[in-house]
Order: sequence, then C-alpha cells, then structure tokens
Amino acid sequence: MFEEIFENVRRNAPLIHNITNYVTVNDCANMLLACGASPIMADDQEDALEITAICGGLNINIGTLNRRTIPAMFAAGKRANELGHPVVLDPVGAGASTLRTETALGLLKEVRFTVIRGNVSEIKTLALGSGNTKGVDANVADRVTEENLSGAIEFAKGFARRTGAVIAVTGAIDIVTDGERAFCIRNGRPEMSAITGTGCQLSALTAAFAAAGPDCPLEAAAAAVCAMGLCGEIAYERMTGLDGNSSYRNYIIDAMYRLTPAELERRANYEVR
Amino acid sequence: MFEEIFENVRRNAPLIHNITNYVTVNDCANMLLACGASPIMADDQEDALEITAICGGLNINIGTLNRRTIPAMFAAGKRANELGHPVVLDPVGAGASTLRTETALGLLKEVRFTVIRGNVSEIKTLALGSGNTKGVDANVADRVTEENLSGAIEFAKGFARRTGAVIAVTGAIDIVTDGERAFCIRNGRPEMSAITGTGCQLSALTAAFAAAGPDCPLEAAAAAVCAMGLCGEIAYERMTGLDGNSSYRNYIIDAMYRLTPAELERRANYEVR
Amino acid sequence: MFEEIFENVRRNAPLIHNITNYVTVNDCANMLLACGASPIMADDQEDALEITAICGGLNINIGTLNRRTIPAMFAAGKRANELGHPVVLDPVGAGASTLRTETALGLLKEVRFTVIRGNVSEIKTLALGSGNTKGVDANVADRVTEENLSGAIEFAKGFARRTGAVIAVTGAIDIVTDGERAFCIRNGRPEMSAITGTGCQLSALTAAFAAAGPDCPLEAAAAAVCAMGLCGEIAYERMTGLDGNSSYRNYIIDAMYRLTPAELERRANYEVR
Repeated sequence: MFEEIFENVRRNAPLIHNITNYVTVNDCANMLLACGASPIMADDQEDALEITAICGGLNINIGTLNRRTIPAMFAAGKRANELGHPVVLDPVGAGASTLRTETALGLLKEVRFTVIRGNVSEIKTLALGSGNTKGVDANVADRVTEENLSGAIEFAKGFARRTGAVIAVTGAIDIVTDGERAFCIRNGRPEMSAITGTGCQLSALTAAFAAAGPDCPLEAAAAAVCAMGLCGEIAYERMTGLDGNSSYRNYIIDAMYRLTPAELERRANYEVR
Repeated sequence: MFEEIFENVRRNAPLIHNITNYVTVNDCANMLLACGASPIMADDQEDALEITAICGGLNINIGTLNRRTIPAMFAAGKRANELGHPVVLDPVGAGASTLRTETALGLLKEVRFTVIRGNVSEIKTLALGSGNTKGVDANVADRVTEENLSGAIEFAKGFARRTGAVIAVTGAIDIVTDGERAFCIRNGRPEMSAITGTGCQLSALTAAFAAAGPDCPLEAAAAAVCAMGLCGEIAYERMTGLDGNSSYRNYIIDAMYRLTPAELERRANYEVR
Repeated sequence: MFEEIFENVRRNAPLIHNITNYVTVNDCANMLLACGASPIMADDQEDALEITAICGGLNINIGTLNRRTIPAMFAAGKRANELGHPVVLDPVGAGASTLRTETALGLLKEVRFTVIRGNVSEIKTLALGSGNTKGVDANVADRVTEENLSGAIEFAKGFARRTGAVIAVTGAIDIVTDGERAFCIRNGRPEMSAITGTGCQLSALTAAFAAAGPDCPLEAAAAAVCAMGLCGEIAYERMTGLDGNSSYRNYIIDAMYRLTPAELERRANYEVR
C-alpha cells in the first residue's frame, strides 16, 4: 500500500501549497521536489487563497508565526476544505507561547485537518488546550518510550477521534492513528533531531502523500513518516567521520530523491495496533 | 565576450541588491558570492531605497510576494532606474495568482527592466497580460521545444521590443533576446528543475553579469544563462549514485565558484538567430 | 577555559532565541544545533516576548531589517535584560542605511548587550554614531591588519568600556575585548567570507557560548570566535578541487558538529593584549 501511494506521488507530482516558517522553508521545498511533488509558497492572504486553489494539498506550519500570515492560514485552510484538498497542520512550538498555542487551537476549530503532525509535547498541547513546551523540541518527560507506548497510543487515538484528523506523533517511536488503528513506526535515527526542520520537512512530505492518497489518509501519513525515517537511516549509512548535521541534512533529501516505492514498502518498519 | 563579462564580475565584485522570496534567498546569496559578486538583501521600503543606491544592480523576484514588500520593489526599481543601475525582474508564479500577475504587470509599467527572466508560462503571462500558470513551473503545453522554437523566438523578440528589456525565457532550450538578436542556449540539465530556486539563482546571477557588462545587457544575460546551465552540467558530472537534488544544489554553486571565464567562453553552447 | 565553556554548551544545550534575517537563518539554526545548543526563532513582538523568557540567551541580528520585527527586537532585548539572559547584537549592514544604523543605535541605548559582534565597519558605525558601510562586508580601508592592530584594539577597548559590552570585531584578525583585556584571534580562513552568513552563524554561536558561560562573557565570546574560525580551518582541509563555497558552508557546520572541547582548547590561536 505504501508503495502504491508513493508511486502516485511520483506519477501525479502534486502541487503542495506551504504556508510555513522561513527557517526551514528551503529544505521543505527541496524535500517536496525530492519525493516527486512540487512546492509553492504563498503567505499573503489574497495570494494564498488563489494559490491554494490551484494546488492539490496544503501544509500549514506555525514556526516563526506572525500576525501578518495568520489570516492567510485560516483563509487558505477553509478554502482547501471547501475544495476537498488534504490539509496538514504542523503546530511548531505550540505550548511554547500563547500566540502559537492560540493560533493552533483556533485553526483546529475553523479548519478540518487531514493530518496533524507534531512532537508529543505539541500534540499534547493541542489535545489539552494548553501546554508548556520548552521550545520546538519535545519535553523529555513527554517522550514516547516502549514503556509508555500503550498509553500514548490511546491518547493519540482519542485525539484523532475528537478531531477527525489523522494524528501523527513523531519522535523515537512514531504513532500515526485515525482513532481506530495506530501505526507504530520505528524507522528513523536519533541524529535527525540535530538537523533543523526534519519535522517541517516531514509535514510537507505528508501533505504530498495525502494528496496522492486522498482515500487513505491514515496510510498516506504513515507512509510519509516511514519514508522520512527510512531516508534518515539510508543517509546515516552514508555518513563519514567528517560529516555532521549539515551534510546529513543534504543526504536525507538526497535519499528521498533516490528512494523507490518498492524500497519504501520493503524497509518500512511498523506494526499496527 | 562572455569571458570578458565574467572577468568583470570577478574583478569588480558588483554589490547586488535583492528583493526576493524567503524560499531560495540563501542560495541566491551563495550563488552571487560564487560568481564573484556580493549580495545584499533589503525589503523594507525605506531601507531598500538606500541600499539600492549603494549597489551596482537590483534583482526583483516576486516569489512569496506580500503586501509588505511590494512598495519596496516599486521604490527600489525606480531609484535604480534614476541611477542607471541594471534591474532584473523574475516574475515567479506570474499567471498563478492575481497578486503576482498584477504586481508584475504594474512593475513593468513603472520600472524599466534591463532583463526579464522567467519560464515560458511566466513570460507569456506578462506579454499577454494574463495567464494561468500552474504554480512556479512552466505549463507543459507552453514548453519551448525544437519544433516550436522559431515561434518562441519571434514571440520573445516581440516582447523584448515592446518592453525595451532583454527577455530571457529559460527552460530546456533558453532564449535570450533584445528584440533584434536571439541567443538560443542549450547548456543545462533537466535535473536542475528538481532543485528549488535554480531560476531564482539565475536571476540574481543575471543582475551581477548585467552590472559587470552595462553596455551589453544582451550578452551579459546570455552569459549568465550559459554559466548557470554550464554549472548544472559540471555539477551533474560530479553526481554519484547516492547524490540527489540537495547535493546537486551544492555542486552547482560549487561549480560556479570554480568556473573560470575561459571555461565559460569555451563551453557556452549557443547559436544566435 | 574555552574547553570548559564549550563542554557547558554541550551539557546544558541552551535554548537560544534568534530574531534574525531570513537569508542565513537556516544556517544559524544548524550551527546552533551543531555546537550542542538548540535554536528557536520568533519575531512577532508578542511571541518574541514569551519565547525569550523560556530561552537561555537572545541573538538579535538586523540583516533584512524591517518595520514589522524592530519592535520585537526592543521588547525581547529588554525582557532578556530583566531576566539576566545574555544578549548578542549583530549589527549587519549598520552604516549602509539609515534604518539599520538608527535601529542599531537605538538598541544600544535601550538594551544592555552582553556581546556586540560585527565587522570593523559595522562596529565603527556604532562607535561613531554614523558610517558609510558598503553593504554587509567591511570597507577595505577599515580592515584590521598587523600594521593597525594596536590602534584597532584600543578603539575596540574604548567602545567596550563605553557600552559595558564585550566587543567582537571579526575579520582576518579578530579582536574580542571587554575594555580591559583583548583576545587577538588568528583562527579562520579568508575563504569563509565567500559564504553568506558565517558572521551571522558566529553571532548565534556566541549567544550559545555566552549562555553557557554567564560569568565570563569575554572568554565565552572569544571561545565562540576561535571555534568558528577553527571550524573554518578544519573544513578547509576537507575541501577537494571540486568543492566551492556551498560545500564549504556544509563542511564548517559539520566541523562544529564534530569539534570536541579539547580540540578547541588545543587549536585556539590567540594572544591576550
């Protein structure tokens, strides 16, 4: 199934509209191109409305959130809903500031998201209505481990049922669930967290996969999460003793460019619970 | 002639003012440094007016266009005209939204451009006054091929005569014309389109070459287009079976850093029609 | 001492708030991650106030300065002062435009900076209250050389005493002084100036080191300057005949990722005057 969805990305080259932060936007664009999709960025409200209409999916990311672009997020999200396009939310830093938390909660009320992807602290903030995330990384106390995995799955399932969205909680173990089934994914490398924007790239990728698999958002999101983690593994194998996080960033995007749908199917490492 | 212009870039290190999108801005800065020029970015209206005055050329790029920076584009463009500095327009996504199309058309009315560089769909939008570009890539139906090349050249020549600008339509075959002569350029690799911002980088490069060859904007623009394509070829030769679009991006900028004016002269692949 | 400060960065992973330009922001984030710190970017006034409070240090960089984010710089700077967090100023392009010069001077009046890091033209502009910097690079006439080094040190010491900040004037020879002692640092490579944002990265790094060495801002800033220069040297050794400024950029960040505190201590190249 992952193979088929990824083949669709490569075949259909969905155009993905990103309203995203300026820190990692270039990597998101290159990751979208690497997977076979096509990126466009537009964050002026008027422009965003039209651009979203010509796209196949929308990715809203609240990193470097500011008053100028928030209206564009709401407007484009609603337009994408009207058009039946998949919409992904990446609540970067939700819980770390009132503006980010309130904006993310407001978006949840007014836009129907196909997938919400964040770290566990961000997702907890959205589910509980408040949080105290320490920046853009998950709080240590929140982290999903083998010990607390069952509880984390139930929590994610509950939030998925309440929102109607596929919830993707990513970290050492990733959980992707639609409220009924949960993919527990063990692809990836811890070194990926030493690169800025691997989460942002994954959210952009998820929008592309969701656009290519409109009838199976759960599988599409799980495939994107597996693909990103797998590229982290492949890229890690390529690292030399001189390479660090900057080369690793390039290698991950390169790995996505080279990844075949068959290899994704074969090396995806998950169980369904 | 290309050799001499490129030598002037390296010798004079023109300072190029860029009002550009936040997706590819870092690559534009590194490309300008790679060719021997010096980049500066300023998009606040007040700041842009002063910055443009200390520069040797201006590059206006409408990707991620927003209401805040549009006035800076008009103000800086007019100031650069007053000062006799070359001005390049990159109409990213013209035809894909009203804001982009209208802004580009407005700029064409109020600013005299030295060079307008875009893909064929963007240039058609400017020439016809409207368009329906599908994002930031050229529509398939618009693409310049050996079969429709003569017509495309005539079209570009006509638009060059109407605007007084050198028109650079880039794609598989690039056309650079001042309305009288047209350089048809066959440097480059199709894989370059899998990197975000190769067009943006080329526009920045064109501004540097135009600043270094103020008396020959046609040759300067053609030299920049050949140089960018040639770097795409050189970088492609360096690709291994593990490299993808991210490493390719680095290699292209690296190739420009290493390119000599003599090699540009020798490997430039064009005919004049 | 440098070893201990760098070990503290790696151990404490200080969260650094950056209000910075969109040209080099991604590299700043990856450089912070490479040294063991954690980056967050927030430039909306309301958001910046809260974000700065959860961080350990603040880095204000005025590249691509605009009216929207200036209030966030003042507000976050004052908040960081109240909280006793180290604050770094990078006056990119001060002297090149009124907006940049006035904003930098205004920040100097209202915010107590722990470290001010810039090229010699930018620092002169701040010290003299005006300047005519040619873009974002130092004017040739201003450059610090062996011949004018003594005078440059006295100048920097005087400005440090007046501001109460550690002054870091970086170039071929770097001067870092608190007004009493001056570190003259000879790490680094001239090729670093062919990469956009090595100065911005250094300022972000300096904020991380200052957060990790709150009792010794002079040594912390000097350690950051040595570390950046040393990574430039290590990365240069890795360059092949095909590499240019883009790969060099990656290699410098990679080198920071690999650099050990002991190696920094051993290869730091400075004298105290």
